[in-house]
Amino acid sequence: MIIDCHGHYTTAPKELQNYRDAQIAGLKDPSYVQTKGTINISDDQIRESLENAQLKLQRERGTDVTVFSPRASAMGHHIGNATTSLHWTQHCNDLIYRVCGLYPKNFVGVCQLPQTPSEPLANCVAELERCINQLGFIGCNLNPDPSGGHWTAPPLTDKYWYPFYEKMVELDVPAMVHVSASCNANFHTTGSHYINADTTAFMQFLTSDLFKDFPKLRFIIPHGGGAVPYHWGRYRGIAQDMKRPLLTDLIRHNIFFDTCVYHMPGIELLLKIVPVDNILFASEMIGAVRGIDPETGHYYDDTKTYLDKATGLGADDKKKIFEGNTRKVYPRLKL
Amino acid sequence: MIIDCHGHYTTAPKELQNYRDAQIAGLKDPSYVQTKGTINISDDQIRESLENAQLKLQRERGTDVTVFSPRASAMGHHIGNATTSLHWTQHCNDLIYRVCGLYPKNFVGVCQLPQTPSEPLANCVAELERCINQLGFIGCNLNPDPSGGHWTAPPLTDKYWYPFYEKMVELDVPAMVHVSASCNANFHTTGSHYINADTTAFMQFLTSDLFKDFPKLRFIIPHGGGAVPYHWGRYRGIAQDMKRPLLTDLIRHNIFFDTCVYHMPGIELLLKIVPVDNILFASEMIGAVRGIDPETGHYYDDTKTYLDKATGLGADDKKKIFEGNTRKVYPRLKL
Repeated sequence: MIIDCHGHYTTAPKELQNYRDAQIAGLKDPSYVQTKGTINISDDQIRESLENAQLKLQRERGTDVTVFSPRASAMGHHIGNATTSLHWTQHCNDLIYRVCGLYPKNFVGVCQLPQTPSEPLANCVAELERCINQLGFIGCNLNPDPSGGHWTAPPLTDKYWYPFYEKMVELDVPAMVHVSASCNANFHTTGSHYINADTTAFMQFLTSDLFKDFPKLRFIIPHGGGAVPYHWGRYRGIAQDMKRPLLTDLIRHNIFFDTCVYHMPGIELLLKIVPVDNILFASEMIGAVRGIDPETGHYYDDTKTYLDKATGLGADDKKKIFEGNTRKVYPRLKL
Repeated sequence: MIIDCHGHYTTAPKELQNYRDAQIAGLKDPSYVQTKGTINISDDQIRESLENAQLKLQRERGTDVTVFSPRASAMGHHIGNATTSLHWTQHCNDLIYRVCGLYPKNFVGVCQLPQTPSEPLANCVAELERCINQLGFIGCNLNPDPSGGHWTAPPLTDKYWYPFYEKMVELDVPAMVHVSASCNANFHTTGSHYINADTTAFMQFLTSDLFKDFPKLRFIIPHGGGAVPYHWGRYRGIAQDMKRPLLTDLIRHNIFFDTCVYHMPGIELLLKIVPVDNILFASEMIGAVRGIDPETGHYYDDTKTYLDKATGLGADDKKKIFEGNTRKVYPRLKL
């Protein structure tokens, strides 16, 4: 079985965005009372949004299951307040639940969290419990920068996050570290903000004893780990200078990199540097890059083609990357 | 000749930091009147600070000249106000001038700029002119985030920066894009802030027509271009989706990557991805990583050893990376 651990519902019916637009417009109206409201999307609309998109690409590429979450760039945790974020998040997660109900062999859910800058994480704990226990989801996306590019939250290693980590460990679910759209003009959302967040999170973990406090806490750092494999020597050297553990020990049970790296030399570097047990197959499909690479004739984000061609990767290793590691990191995945 | 285009005076005599400490302490005293003051450092102290450090490593590693600038992490543009930054910057640059005077065959100067968040760049234009025309420097370090990790400045492609770019073009000098220390707890200075800034700047350039306005403007993106070579497919794909130029055309005359990547697989990726004409030898010595890699027996930052061993890199290519490209990017280099 080939499991893609990183897909977002970027093709949701327009009613979802209409709801969000109205919600944001309401925030500007002093007389507006925030209510959760409803979104009317039919099962047929959901099917239509997927059949010629993610499902078609699953068939064409030969992947079986996508670990599926709401559109990351639309999480927008910096917009409005805690109530705004909660209503929006619950609708987004409920829609993922419906996707998984319609296509139980193709999608398994991962939830967005109702984060809000400077707010405690009680809402996130509750929504995680709801999604895992009631909706059958298997993990969550945790945003290290709910401010959207201003980086005002404490580092992921700060005790601010501990109540949420306690719930993650209790439920035995991992988090993918994933920011949302940038509202800072310096950062292009998918080109730099996403990648920077990956690099930033790794360095936070490197300098902290977080995993001594939570030995079973598991994070997926997406987009091939940001800049980390390319600068592995730099990180090994910094860890050594700081008398921190070896990177292979740091990551072993707690940090995993996905394969969302969109060219063969990058994938080859990832496979050369990161232990095979810490690599999870993913494509981010349909996501940041939508075109076909004229150099290969394949979609840039068809990362399976790179792995299929990778030399020196034995059958056992491929099975780990395509399936086994993801089952280990997401033990609630039962397909 | 082997030219290292990226070295900082990280070993300056302690009197420099004492000056800075007093300057910062003064900012807290309402009665304090900012004056430039003096720093008493003898030529012997300067010699001593270099002989067993950068000069020793130049000799051991077989490099000839270092393009030398003040300690990047100490620029601290977010501290105090425009006057604070100007006084501090002039002292730092004057010290580099003295280094270059004492060792004219070993060091050539690149200046720090008196940037201050939200201030116009007139001070920077004046200091650039002073350093180039009076001190014989050949380039500058430009900080895309003078706030130190809060990213409050406009992107490097914004017209805010244009007066400075006009002066760079007039003087025919390049800028290395280089942030200073992070005062944001999310970012480790050398582990994530530096690398993120490199990635961020590249993406800003990719999405803009800056080089149509300034065809002769040249930037060095240090630390091997941040995450860019590792994610080259992602950037090619994003550029394609946005109908932007090919990356090779984008960078050809305007963007150059240094070789501050501290392990062989990273260097191999850089050499495979980035056209040889856009790669400049550098080590960042003595900088972010000070130890010896137990896997190789060499200093992590002895990047010459990686290039010496790189297969498929012919003599002409090596000469470009070690010398020719740097002369092209820094035409004022006359050694």
